[in-house]
Amino acid sequence: MTFPKNSVGLVTPQRYVCDTPLALQNGDTLDGYELVYETYGKLKADKSNALLICHALSGHHHAAGYHSEDDAKPGWWDACIGPGKAIDTDRFFVVSLNNLGGCHGSTGPRTLNPSTGKSHGPDFPNVVVKDWVNSQVALADHLGIKTLAAVVGGSLGGMQALQWAIDYPDRVKACVAIASAAKLSAQNIAFNEIARRAITSDQDFNEGRYFDAEKNPERGLGLARMIGHVTYLSDDGMGTKFGRDIKSGDFGSGADVEFQVESYLNYQGRAFTQYFDANTYLLMTKALDHFDPARETNGDLVEAFAPALCKFLVLSFSSDWRFSAERSQEIVDALVRAKKNVASAVIESEHGHDSFLLPIERYVAALGTFLNQSLAEHPNQADGEPI
Amino acid sequence: MTFPKNSVGLVTPQRYVCDTPLALQNGDTLDGYELVYETYGKLKADKSNALLICHALSGHHHAAGYHSEDDAKPGWWDACIGPGKAIDTDRFFVVSLNNLGGCHGSTGPRTLNPSTGKSHGPDFPNVVVKDWVNSQVALADHLGIKTLAAVVGGSLGGMQALQWAIDYPDRVKACVAIASAAKLSAQNIAFNEIARRAITSDQDFNEGRYFDAEKNPERGLGLARMIGHVTYLSDDGMGTKFGRDIKSGDFGSGADVEFQVESYLNYQGRAFTQYFDANTYLLMTKALDHFDPARETNGDLVEAFAPALCKFLVLSFSSDWRFSAERSQEIVDALVRAKKNVASAVIESEHGHDSFLLPIERYVAALGTFLNQSLAEHPNQADGEPI
Repeated sequence: MTFPKNSVGLVTPQRYVCDTPLALQNGDTLDGYELVYETYGKLKADKSNALLICHALSGHHHAAGYHSEDDAKPGWWDACIGPGKAIDTDRFFVVSLNNLGGCHGSTGPRTLNPSTGKSHGPDFPNVVVKDWVNSQVALADHLGIKTLAAVVGGSLGGMQALQWAIDYPDRVKACVAIASAAKLSAQNIAFNEIARRAITSDQDFNEGRYFDAEKNPERGLGLARMIGHVTYLSDDGMGTKFGRDIKSGDFGSGADVEFQVESYLNYQGRAFTQYFDANTYLLMTKALDHFDPARETNGDLVEAFAPALCKFLVLSFSSDWRFSAERSQEIVDALVRAKKNVASAVIESEHGHDSFLLPIERYVAALGTFLNQSLAEHPNQADGEPI
Repeated sequence: MTFPKNSVGLVTPQRYVCDTPLALQNGDTLDGYELVYETYGKLKADKSNALLICHALSGHHHAAGYHSEDDAKPGWWDACIGPGKAIDTDRFFVVSLNNLGGCHGSTGPRTLNPSTGKSHGPDFPNVVVKDWVNSQVALADHLGIKTLAAVVGGSLGGMQALQWAIDYPDRVKACVAIASAAKLSAQNIAFNEIARRAITSDQDFNEGRYFDAEKNPERGLGLARMIGHVTYLSDDGMGTKFGRDIKSGDFGSGADVEFQVESYLNYQGRAFTQYFDANTYLLMTKALDHFDPARETNGDLVEAFAPALCKFLVLSFSSDWRFSAERSQEIVDALVRAKKNVASAVIESEHGHDSFLLPIERYVAALGTFLNQSLAEHPNQADGEPI
């Protein structure tokens, strides 16, 4: 297979084994852990061009390129990462990891607990956004990167980018939060709770020890995914995609009818259960619910952003109703009041929350322009490559 | 207990036993069936003041008043039905029934099949909106009512009101469809499918024969109710009601945190499973999905409405996103193009789809004004009561 010209091509995941204990927000300590990551592009000698990608609920380290010659699909954010793309690998050295608690190779519920010889399962601690950022700092140290040119993420990934700006102001030059929120709305928490409830009430969940019982709570996890799917799309977008087309059955004959959208959702739900871990799903949604940087400043988001030194780009999408433009506007308002350097845009799109994964022209242009300007303001002093 | 002055007071459900077979849309025939209903107000001698209430997904016949002196709560639409209320029982003789396939006493999955001695369960046919209307016509005949002054319903109830106007134009003078739709959007169907999937994948569902197994798919039915709850409210309304208040746990200590909204949803989900039947939930959501009067006119809703002779009132609510104002506007547009007499309003409310159950001032005023004017246009010729 020939890869597209603007693809990063073949990529190989790497592994960072950290022996330094990580103190978690819940009081636990991870004595050591492993992070799987990929990199795209070339790190300059002065290490000034590193860009960190933070993934969302169901994401992972494989954000761009292909794992093999016959790989059917590229990484999850290939629309935005590659030579000449918005996140331009001709300019940036892109680092993308699977977060702690994930299920794609980094230490999490699915990995073995050496002291028991079984997977951690439900005993894996509830890591939160601040924990991820701390582990990402350790990864940056491991790669010899003192300062990130940018931290970029959508949804839960955007929350990590914001937390970087607050917790490590001298280590990040630009923060991009796409389709994100400074904290979830009650409705958004409610959808997460329903998804969790679907998983935990599956008879095969076995209080999270489904691997021990050689089971998988497929129905519950599939339901959770279906809820995510419907709520991450917009009403109009679903109408365009599915309408009310009938998949099987016939109204006239009285046969049971199935709509295309039902068939699609059921397929997506089933497929998801084959590669995603239920305990990870619980952990990720809890991290979403709990994110609230203003909790440390008595609810004052302006004060929470006070330490930040970087530039900000805040993007949202018109039809995204789980992470609505209003939530992004709250971030922007607080940043403005905190006298930070912030650019923002609401992108017209009918694709709901999923828009952040798609090559929408105005979105890609806004992201690319911001990142390239950010890099230009910190010109490379060692390699002399013209920007 | 003293009932409020504008309450219909104590009411007693009645039973209509129909021996006339009912031919269903799916080709089956019900040889006979029973309908439980209540009435409020007094039928005039000329029987010109009858008003039929059609219930929605989880509704039933008990729409107003109290079943006993110590009844804690009145019927589900008590906000709108009573002396001097929008549906004024000083003027109207209100009939409210539990639909076929329901689980509150009318023939449905939960009632006994005389030929087997067991409950019908999943063998009960999938009745649809047209079937309900036909059974409601039989009930009207039983009560000696030739022409209804009005048929009124919200959501799935509004669909029945519309179907009455189309199928029995000479038997209805006014049709009120509140927070309804001429057909569901793909998103709305998707939420229904997720709810159904939650029920059918519960280990206690037993392919619908849970009564035979002395079980109840409580977790699945509870989940379905939770999905309904969240989607029938608005994001803003939930924010006002719950915010992000914490019910238990403590962020600082790392204890597991539960938000008020989670606690509320879990309570509501559990409570629902104690009085609602899972097979009825499946049946009602399928009836919602399948409703599409324009199917018989090759998708032309204007032509579908052509037979109607009555006045229409179409109401919707600004924050209702499962039965949005746009869906109601589609009904209004088609009625206008069909040259029907139609009034409509979009009511400002932050309570989402549930608004139709609430005493919202402008809503109640619009409903009351329309109904009283409708009645005034067909003045009573027998009783001589001034209107």
